[in-house]
Amino acid sequence: MKKQLQQFKTWLIEQNIDGAFLNDPATVAYLTGYQSDPHERILALLVFPHEAPFLFTPALEIEDAKNSEWDQDVFGYLDNENPWAVIASHINERVSDFKKMAVEKNFLTLDRFEALKNLYPSVEVQDASSIIQQMQLIKTEDEIKKMVEAGEWADKALEIGFQSLEAGKSEQEIVAEIEYQLKKMGIREMSFETMVLTGDNAASPHGVPGERKIQKGDLVLFDLGVVWKGYTSDVTRTVSYGMASEEAAHIYEIVLKAHEEALAAVKPGVKASTLDKIARDIITEAGYGEYFNHRLGHGLGSSVHEFPSIMEGNDMLIQEGMCFSIEPGIYVPGVAGVRIEDCLYVTSDGCEVFTHTPKTFTVID
Amino acid sequence: MKKQLQQFKTWLIEQNIDGAFLNDPATVAYLTGYQSDPHERILALLVFPHEAPFLFTPALEIEDAKNSEWDQDVFGYLDNENPWAVIASHINERVSDFKKMAVEKNFLTLDRFEALKNLYPSVEVQDASSIIQQMQLIKTEDEIKKMVEAGEWADKALEIGFQSLEAGKSEQEIVAEIEYQLKKMGIREMSFETMVLTGDNAASPHGVPGERKIQKGDLVLFDLGVVWKGYTSDVTRTVSYGMASEEAAHIYEIVLKAHEEALAAVKPGVKASTLDKIARDIITEAGYGEYFNHRLGHGLGSSVHEFPSIMEGNDMLIQEGMCFSIEPGIYVPGVAGVRIEDCLYVTSDGCEVFTHTPKTFTVID
Repeated sequence: MKKQLQQFKTWLIEQNIDGAFLNDPATVAYLTGYQSDPHERILALLVFPHEAPFLFTPALEIEDAKNSEWDQDVFGYLDNENPWAVIASHINERVSDFKKMAVEKNFLTLDRFEALKNLYPSVEVQDASSIIQQMQLIKTEDEIKKMVEAGEWADKALEIGFQSLEAGKSEQEIVAEIEYQLKKMGIREMSFETMVLTGDNAASPHGVPGERKIQKGDLVLFDLGVVWKGYTSDVTRTVSYGMASEEAAHIYEIVLKAHEEALAAVKPGVKASTLDKIARDIITEAGYGEYFNHRLGHGLGSSVHEFPSIMEGNDMLIQEGMCFSIEPGIYVPGVAGVRIEDCLYVTSDGCEVFTHTPKTFTVID
Repeated sequence: MKKQLQQFKTWLIEQNIDGAFLNDPATVAYLTGYQSDPHERILALLVFPHEAPFLFTPALEIEDAKNSEWDQDVFGYLDNENPWAVIASHINERVSDFKKMAVEKNFLTLDRFEALKNLYPSVEVQDASSIIQQMQLIKTEDEIKKMVEAGEWADKALEIGFQSLEAGKSEQEIVAEIEYQLKKMGIREMSFETMVLTGDNAASPHGVPGERKIQKGDLVLFDLGVVWKGYTSDVTRTVSYGMASEEAAHIYEIVLKAHEEALAAVKPGVKASTLDKIARDIITEAGYGEYFNHRLGHGLGSSVHEFPSIMEGNDMLIQEGMCFSIEPGIYVPGVAGVRIEDCLYVTSDGCEVFTHTPKTFTVID
């Protein structure tokens, strides 16, 4: 049994909880090592303070689950069975008096919650999301090792992207080229949909890559990451394809300064909100405050959006072992969109970034 | 305003509901035409029986939403704002006495539900999922047209896949090749992760494509689809790379017969469960019943898993305009995995399939 699952069981005991129903696939992977996307079917991990846990999967996934590193019970249900009745039968073999149940409130949908309540009408419900987020907040050495590797793949992806820049190619073609080369090298999954945004399109911070064709003088924004051994990477670079406008280059230098100064301030004991403020003040003083319309960063690990959130209002203290992004950006419609992002892990006296693609203003011809 | 949204408003009036909070991105796209994945942020469509609806998005998506076909209000929230307070302020401008609220119980998470309840503690909650699923059940001519086109892309994808078969290539390389060619042709998104499973791997019905290298004599299972103009396709073909074993070929013929006979029975008035039974009886009588461990099919449209579910126990009557898959399969570990899937739309007296790649046993050399 994974150390993390043992730790979660300890929490159940401390909280006097009779059992937990966990159905976020990322949580299931984190606690069992079994990775699967059940789509609209049910995948859940049932954990009890003293009794043996079990995985509950669609029938067609049972074999895969049994062949995974999970070495405890696996039970399944067929499409024509009532999954809740099957779950209840297995729970009832373990716990006779189900008074207090933990669920992931940030993932469990209302209809499924009602189905659980229907099984145990008087059960008291407690949120398990927070403790799991807490557990995931500080990464182990093994997790950081995987994230370092995921970062190397992200650097590789950028390299492919830079090399494939060519006037007249569409953003979508560059995306295709990056993902094709990575998949051939064995990457199965990107952390999120790869973004390549050029010229005006880059002024939308979460734009969709499309048909726009790259022209000389465009800034090109790459935002991408890979999933590697269950862990994610995430990196953004903005490069100039041919020489961009003076204002675009000026905006770049402001973003870079904001990025570097925030990065230099990362160490145990600093507040998350302080990091955001350092970057935001630089951008605001340069007159672009209104064009930096998102938080400075987000945690990542087995999922690409975890805690801590690096933003105003979050006074959480940064601790050794946390992993998160620093990604200031300025997006001026019609002028330029620039974002520079590295993810990092916090060390005892600073931090190490996962990606090493140069950040100085780069002109590609 | 889209006809579908008008229809939804009529339902609110009939049900005496004061407002609806809809946050499934597929529903938002269906009712507004605005497609976006908000990740862990909040995207919601607020609809009222008589007052103007509004879209609620993360601040960084406002511009995109305004530039979409949605022509009503768009309000946003910054990462450091409490989104629920912002939503409440806009609701309160429209409705003074919020007594009954509709939400999507199959999508709304418990924490967000609690946040809404916190805004309106005495509000009565009604499920909106069912009416939306009902609305999506019967496709319009325009929707079917898009799905026909999405089907043509799926056939194209299979063609690319078949052409790229080569001894020693990994499953993953074939996946990469298919997606690369499609992306270059302008496809932005697959309906789901493309599956290419060879030999033993294909005996797992939802396997993950991986490092296994194709060998002569393998059955190769392709399951894939594309998103096209907001609508999905989904197709499965299993081909023989070189000559597969006699038993594999025998299993293929059974699956094909089950597929064809179920398909031939599709017409308005037949029960969904009857279609499942037709296919299942053929497979069971051939002695492989235990190896067909999933339902016969699923609806699809703007999402790849909609209603109707074609399975035992679902006695819903098939109607003209429904779109769903017919996909029997037999998966015998160590022997063969075969699935044959077409999606179709129901006509006044039968059905038309969306994909036309031949289904006869095909040997590729």
